[in-house]
Amino acid sequence: MEDYLERLKKGSLKLYALEDELEPGDAVRIRRTFIEQETRTSLPKLGSYTIAIDRVVRKNCENMIGAVQVPVGVAGPLLVQGEFARGSFYVPLATTEGALVASVNRGCSAITRAGGADVRIFRDGMTRAPVFAARDISHARDICDWVASHRQEIASAAESTTSHGRLTGITTAIGGTSVFVRLEFDTKDAMGMNMVTIASAKAAETISAATGARLIALSGNLCTDKKPAAVNLVLGRGRTVAAGVFLSEALVREVFKTDTRTLAEVNMRKNLVGSARAGSLGFNAHAANIVAAMFIACGQDPAHVVEGSLAVTTVDAVEGGAYISVTLPSLPAGTVGGGTGIDTQQECLTLLGVAGGGNPPGANAKKFAEIIAAAVLAGELSLLGALGAQHLARAHQHLGR
Amino acid sequence: MEDYLERLKKGSLKLYALEDELEPGDAVRIRRTFIEQETRTSLPKLGSYTIAIDRVVRKNCENMIGAVQVPVGVAGPLLVQGEFARGSFYVPLATTEGALVASVNRGCSAITRAGGADVRIFRDGMTRAPVFAARDISHARDICDWVASHRQEIASAAESTTSHGRLTGITTAIGGTSVFVRLEFDTKDAMGMNMVTIASAKAAETISAATGARLIALSGNLCTDKKPAAVNLVLGRGRTVAAGVFLSEALVREVFKTDTRTLAEVNMRKNLVGSARAGSLGFNAHAANIVAAMFIACGQDPAHVVEGSLAVTTVDAVEGGAYISVTLPSLPAGTVGGGTGIDTQQECLTLLGVAGGGNPPGANAKKFAEIIAAAVLAGELSLLGALGAQHLARAHQHLGR
Amino acid sequence: MEDYLERLKKGSLKLYALEDELEPGDAVRIRRTFIEQETRTSLPKLGSYTIAIDRVVRKNCENMIGAVQVPVGVAGPLLVQGEFARGSFYVPLATTEGALVASVNRGCSAITRAGGADVRIFRDGMTRAPVFAARDISHARDICDWVASHRQEIASAAESTTSHGRLTGITTAIGGTSVFVRLEFDTKDAMGMNMVTIASAKAAETISAATGARLIALSGNLCTDKKPAAVNLVLGRGRTVAAGVFLSEALVREVFKTDTRTLAEVNMRKNLVGSARAGSLGFNAHAANIVAAMFIACGQDPAHVVEGSLAVTTVDAVEGGAYISVTLPSLPAGTVGGGTGIDTQQECLTLLGVAGGGNPPGANAKKFAEIIAAAVLAGELSLLGALGAQHLARAHQHLGR
Amino acid sequence: MEDYLERLKKGSLKLYALEDELEPGDAVRIRRTFIEQETRTSLPKLGSYTIAIDRVVRKNCENMIGAVQVPVGVAGPLLVQGEFARGSFYVPLATTEGALVASVNRGCSAITRAGGADVRIFRDGMTRAPVFAARDISHARDICDWVASHRQEIASAAESTTSHGRLTGITTAIGGTSVFVRLEFDTKDAMGMNMVTIASAKAAETISAATGARLIALSGNLCTDKKPAAVNLVLGRGRTVAAGVFLSEALVREVFKTDTRTLAEVNMRKNLVGSARAGSLGFNAHAANIVAAMFIACGQDPAHVVEGSLAVTTVDAVEGGAYISVTLPSLPAGTVGGGTGIDTQQECLTLLGVAGGGNPPGANAKKFAEIIAAAVLAGELSLLGALGAQHLARAHQHLGR
Repeated sequence: MEDYLERLKKGSLKLYALEDELEPGDAVRIRRTFIEQETRTSLPKLGSYTIAIDRVVRKNCENMIGAVQVPVGVAGPLLVQGEFARGSFYVPLATTEGALVASVNRGCSAITRAGGADVRIFRDGMTRAPVFAARDISHARDICDWVASHRQEIASAAESTTSHGRLTGITTAIGGTSVFVRLEFDTKDAMGMNMVTIASAKAAETISAATGARLIALSGNLCTDKKPAAVNLVLGRGRTVAAGVFLSEALVREVFKTDTRTLAEVNMRKNLVGSARAGSLGFNAHAANIVAAMFIACGQDPAHVVEGSLAVTTVDAVEGGAYISVTLPSLPAGTVGGGTGIDTQQECLTLLGVAGGGNPPGANAKKFAEIIAAAVLAGELSLLGALGAQHLARAHQHLGR
Repeated sequence: MEDYLERLKKGSLKLYALEDELEPGDAVRIRRTFIEQETRTSLPKLGSYTIAIDRVVRKNCENMIGAVQVPVGVAGPLLVQGEFARGSFYVPLATTEGALVASVNRGCSAITRAGGADVRIFRDGMTRAPVFAARDISHARDICDWVASHRQEIASAAESTTSHGRLTGITTAIGGTSVFVRLEFDTKDAMGMNMVTIASAKAAETISAATGARLIALSGNLCTDKKPAAVNLVLGRGRTVAAGVFLSEALVREVFKTDTRTLAEVNMRKNLVGSARAGSLGFNAHAANIVAAMFIACGQDPAHVVEGSLAVTTVDAVEGGAYISVTLPSLPAGTVGGGTGIDTQQECLTLLGVAGGGNPPGANAKKFAEIIAAAVLAGELSLLGALGAQHLARAHQHLGR
Repeated sequence: MEDYLERLKKGSLKLYALEDELEPGDAVRIRRTFIEQETRTSLPKLGSYTIAIDRVVRKNCENMIGAVQVPVGVAGPLLVQGEFARGSFYVPLATTEGALVASVNRGCSAITRAGGADVRIFRDGMTRAPVFAARDISHARDICDWVASHRQEIASAAESTTSHGRLTGITTAIGGTSVFVRLEFDTKDAMGMNMVTIASAKAAETISAATGARLIALSGNLCTDKKPAAVNLVLGRGRTVAAGVFLSEALVREVFKTDTRTLAEVNMRKNLVGSARAGSLGFNAHAANIVAAMFIACGQDPAHVVEGSLAVTTVDAVEGGAYISVTLPSLPAGTVGGGTGIDTQQECLTLLGVAGGGNPPGANAKKFAEIIAAAVLAGELSLLGALGAQHLARAHQHLGR
Repeated sequence: MEDYLERLKKGSLKLYALEDELEPGDAVRIRRTFIEQETRTSLPKLGSYTIAIDRVVRKNCENMIGAVQVPVGVAGPLLVQGEFARGSFYVPLATTEGALVASVNRGCSAITRAGGADVRIFRDGMTRAPVFAARDISHARDICDWVASHRQEIASAAESTTSHGRLTGITTAIGGTSVFVRLEFDTKDAMGMNMVTIASAKAAETISAATGARLIALSGNLCTDKKPAAVNLVLGRGRTVAAGVFLSEALVREVFKTDTRTLAEVNMRKNLVGSARAGSLGFNAHAANIVAAMFIACGQDPAHVVEGSLAVTTVDAVEGGAYISVTLPSLPAGTVGGGTGIDTQQECLTLLGVAGGGNPPGANAKKFAEIIAAAVLAGELSLLGALGAQHLARAHQHLGR
C-alpha cells in the first residue's frame, strides 16, 4: 500500500489509474487513504460501503473513494390505478429532509382511501438535439428542408447504433445560423440518454455529410437536458405523465384538517398566481422533493430533478369534493442502466416491482413513471393540506378574537 | 419481532410508530422486514448501512427502512482563489453517471494549472414568501404600504424566533388580491429553509394582525423554492456566486484538444442561442450534474438542484486565450443542519474543510459555495471542451475527405 | 343633430346604435360631438380623417369618433433576397419615436450595400387552442387519444367553415383535467385569426361531441395569442422567418463607425447574456420597434408586436467580417383582412407591392413577412452599431486620457 | 419640385435632407412624390393628413411621407376609483380589430354599474441598465461593490442631466464578466426612456471612470425594454398598476349571460393553467389589445405593448359574486414627450383629462396609468364573459340533446 501511496504522491501514478493495477476494493481503499492523507481527514464511514463495486467503478463512478449513505424511508401503501402500475405500492424515498416521508405518507393515505390515483402517460420520448452551424440563412433552410424530407435516412443511421431505441420524432429550429435538430427516441426501459446520444451522433454525421452543416455540439441545449426549459413543457422529454384523484369533502377534513375550498384557494394563489408572478416554469408545491427522493433511492440521474420540477398542480372544485391532479411534462426515468444496477438502488426498484427490463420492453419504466406521478400527487396533496390547515387554524384564531 | 410484525399487519401498530417502542436500529429492522413481507422482496443491502441513525430517524427521515449507498468519487486537486475558499481541494461527487467524475477531474486539472478559479459571492440570502389574500386592490396596496413602512417591526417579529438568522430584505408583489411578501434572511452556515420558514410564520402573523391580510400559505411560490423561477435569477436565493478562469490557448489545446475559438463557438451556439430558443432559464452545459453530485455527497437538499440549474456560462475571447466563467444566481447550501450531520455526508464536508459552523458564522457555508462554483466551472469547461474536440475531430475528418 | 344628442344624453339612443339610423360619416360626427360635450373637450383633428369609413365602421371599429394620425416615414431602399420578396423596397414605418426611421434607414443602407438580406421562411401556420375540461386524468388521455386518431375528421369539420384555410397540424397538451388542442392552419394571405377561430369552434364541437370533453374556452392560451409564450418559440405561430447578411469589416467601419468584433461583443453581452439574466423570452435589441411601426403602417394587429418581440439576434464572426442575423419565431401578418383595407394602410401595403391576395394565395403574405424580417434586421444592425460606436468612442476617450 | 426629384434620383440630394432646404409640408410632399415614382404607386391618402408636422418631422419621424389614419372608437363611460383617476371616462381606442371597442365597452358598462374599478399603483420607475465588461470575476465583484457604496455619487451624475428625473433605485447583476447596473428613475409625467437613457449615460461614465469597468452598451437588456422579460415582472418597469371590481352574480348574468363560477373556471383553465403550460410570461386574456389601442390613440410607444402583455388576471369567488382583477406589472406610459404632442393623439389625452404635465408633476401620467388598467380590466371581463357564455351556451345545447 505504501508503495502506491508513494507513487500517487510523486505523481508517477495517477489517481484514476489505480483500478488498472488493483482490484476495485483495493483501489478504492488506497485512493481513499491517499485522499485522507492529503486532506488530513479521516473518512471511515465513506469507506464502509457494502455494495458490490466491480461494475460501479467501471460504469458509474471514476476515482471512487467510497459511498455516501442516504437514509431511505417508505411511504405507503399507495394505491395506483395506472395503465402499467395497478395496485398498492410502498414508495422508497431517499432523503435527509425531516418530515418529507411523513408528509408523502399522509398523501398516500388519502389517495389510497379515495380509491387510488388515476394515472396516465401522455407522451414518451427521450431527446437529444445536436446544433449545427449553417453558412447563412438560406443554408439553414436547406438543412431544415433536407432533414424534413429524409426522416427515414436519418432514422436508419440513428437506429443502426442501438438494438432497443427507435427514432420517433424529429423537429428543427434555428437561431440565425445555428440549426438545432431535436431527435426523439423510444428508449424502452432505459432512461436512454446514452443510447440517444450515440444514436444522435450517427444521425448528426448523416445530416452533416449530406448538407454541409457543420456540427458544433452533439447537445445544442434544445434537448433540453438538466436545464429548466419550456421546450420540455411543450414537446415533452422522457415521460409526460399525470396523476389525479377525487377527494371527498369528508376525507379532506379527516386527513388534512381543512376543506376543499381552502385547498383550491391555496393552489390558486400559491401554485398558479404565485408561480406566474415569479416567472416560474414550475406550478407546483414541491414536486422536486418527491422526484429527488425517489430518483436517489432508485438509481436515477438526480440532475433530472430539474425536469421533474416543471410540474403543474391543479385543484378543481367538483360536486362533493375536489379533483386534485399533478402533471409532469418531463420525467426522464428508467429501470435499466445508469445507477439502477447498484445493489441498494436495485432493491428499491425491486420494492416497486419494476427492476430490470419490462415485458414488453418499456413496461417497467412506464410503470415506474406512473408510480412516481402518484407519489408526487401524494406530496402535493399533503403540502397543500398542511398549508391550508394552517390557514384554517389562523382563520379560526381570527374569528375567535 | 413476530409480535410487532403481527401488530403492523393488523394495523394496531402504525409503521411510523415503531420508534416509539423500540431502539432506532430495531425499529428500522422490523419495519424493513414488514415491508419485505408485504412486497415479497428481500432488501438486505438497504439494511446494511453503517451510519449512526439515532439522530437520523428523528431529524432526517421518517419510516426509515435502511439506506441507499451512492458511490463517491473525487475530482481534484482543484485550486480555488475565492474570498473564503483559498487553496487546493478534492471535490467529493456522489454519482452513478459514468464519466462525470472523470470529466470534472479534467476541468479541475485545467483550472489548477491555470492558477486557480477566481470565485466571488455576489449576494447572500435565503427567502420565504408567504401569500396573503387582500379584500380588494385598495387593501392590497394598504398591505404593501404597511409592510414597506414597518420593516423594523416585521424584522423584530421574525428574528424573535431565531438566534442566528437576520432579516436582510423585504419585497412585495401582488397578483390581484394575492399579496406576496418575500422575506430574505442571512442564515449564516445553515441553508436556512427551516429557520426562515419559522421566522416568516411570525412575520406573517404580525402583518396579518396589523393589516387584516388573510394568510393563505406560508410559502406563496415567490420564494421560489424548488421550482425554476426567474425571481431567483433577478433577486437571488441562497448564494449568488460566480467562478471564472483564464485559460491560455496552449493549455486549452493540451488539456481539451481543442482551441478557444471553438470553446467560444460551442458556448454561444449551445449555451446561449440554444437555451434562448428552448425557452430555458438555464444557460449552461450541465451545471446541475455537479451541483447534484456535490449536494448528495455533502448532505444538502437535492431538490435544490433545480435552483443550481439556473447557471449562465460564458466564454470571452481575450488576448492569448479565453476567460471562461459560470454564474450561479441561486445556490442554497449549508454546512450545518439538514443532512450535513449524517456520518458519511459529514465526512465529505470535512474533506472540503467546511464541516460545521464557520468562524465567523457563515464562513463555512460561503467557503462551501465558492468551492461548488469552482467545481461547476470545472464541469462546464470539460464538457465544452469535449463537445468542441468532437467538433474539431469532425472538422478534420471533413477536411480530410 | 340636436335631436340625436338629446336622445344620447337621455339614454334612449345608445352610442353604438347611431349607425343604425345614420350614414357612417354622420354617425361618427354626432358621436364625436356627444363625446365632446360630455367631456367638455374639442376634438377637431380626430374628426378630420380622410379615409373612407363605410367598411371601417362595420368591420374595424365600433363607436368610431374619428381617427388618429400616425406619421409615416420611409426607410430604404432595402434590398431583399428572399424567396418571395426579391428586389428593393421602401419600408413604411408609422412611428412617433424620433430617430427610429433614421436608424432603420442606416441599417437598410448597410444591407443594401452588402448585396441584400438573405431571408427565408421556416414555418407557417396560424393557431388556436381551445381548452376543454375532462372529468379526470383517464378521460383527458382518452380525449388526447381520440384527437390523435381522428385528425381527418377534425380537419373536415374545421375546413368546412372556410374556403381558404387548411388544417396543417394538431398538438395536444394537458394541465391536469384541462385539455388543450392546438390547431394550426395555413391561412394564405390572411393573418387568419378570425378564420382560425371559426374553424376551431367547429373542430371543438366535433371533439366535444365525440369525447364528452367540456369546452371551456375557444382560446385556451396555448395558442398563444398576444402574450409572450415559449410555445410560440418552439412551435411557431404565424410565420417563422429569419434574415441575415454578411457585412465586411470595411462596410461596418464605414456605415457604423465601429468594427465587427465590437458588434459581436455587444450582441453577446446585451442580447444573449443580458436577456438570459433578465429571464427574457426575447434576445434582440429592439425588434418590437420595427414590427410595431410596420404593423401600424400596414394595418396589422398591433397587439401582435408581442409575438414579434420574441426575436433572436446573432452576430457570427467570419473571415473578413460578420454574419448578422435575426430570427423571428412568431410573426403573424397578412395582406388581406383586418386593417389592411383601410385607405392609408392599403397604400403602405401597395408601396411594398403586397396589397391584397397573392398569386398563388399566400405569396403576398409571405413576401410581406420576408420584408418585415429584413427590416427588423436593419433595425438590429443599426442599434448594435450605435451602441458599439458609443462604446468605441468611449474606448477612445479612455485611451486618450 | 422636378428639380428636387431630379436631385433625389441622382443621389445628389439625400431623402432625409429635404427638410434642410424646404418647409416640412413641402419636404414631405416631394419625398412622397419621389417614393411614388420609385415604387410606381399612388399614395394620396397617406398625404392627406391634417396634423401639424413642424414639430413632428423634427421630433417624431424622419423621412416622413405622410400619415396613416387609425380609426378611433370610444368605450365608456368607465367609472374609475383610483387615487389619481376618480370619475367617469370615455376611453379612446385606436384599432382596426372589429369587435374590440364593443367588447371593451361591455366591460366598461359592467364596471360602471358595479360602482367603478378599484385601481392602485404599486410601483413607479423607468429603468435603463447599461452593461459593462469586467476583466474577471473579482473585478466584477469590485464594480458591484463600488456601485453599492456610491449610490449618491451615481445619483448626482445621473440627475445632473435632467431637471425632472430622480434616481430611485440601483440594482446590479452579473453574467460572468458582464456587469449590469439597472438604474431606476422617477420620470414624472414622461414615459421617460430618453431622459433615463441620457442620465444613465452619465451614470455609466461615472462608474466606468471609478472602476475601470468597460462600457459595452448603454442598454444591456436587463432594463428590459420592449422584450418580454421576467425582470419587469419582479422589479417592475414603468408603473405597476392593478385594477379590480366586484361583480354580483346578477350583474354577471345580465351583462355577460354567464355566471361567476364559469368566469372563474375560464380564468383558471385558460389564463392560469393554459399560460403555465405555454411557458408564458403573460397570464391574461388579451390585455395587449387594450394597451395597444390606447397607446396608439394616445401617442405612446406602441412597442411597449410587449411590457403591457405581462398582465395577470384573477377571478376570486366571493360571497354573492366574484372579484375580478388585472395586474399590470410593467406599464410604461406618459403624458408629455414622445407622440403625445401630435394633434390627434393630444386630443385623445385631452379626452381623458390627462394631456400635458400634471400637478403635481407625475399626477397626469399616474392618472393615465390608472385609466389604462381599468380599461384593461374591462377588456378582460368582457372576453372572459364571452368565452364563458359560449361555454354555457354549449352546455345548454349539450343538455338539450
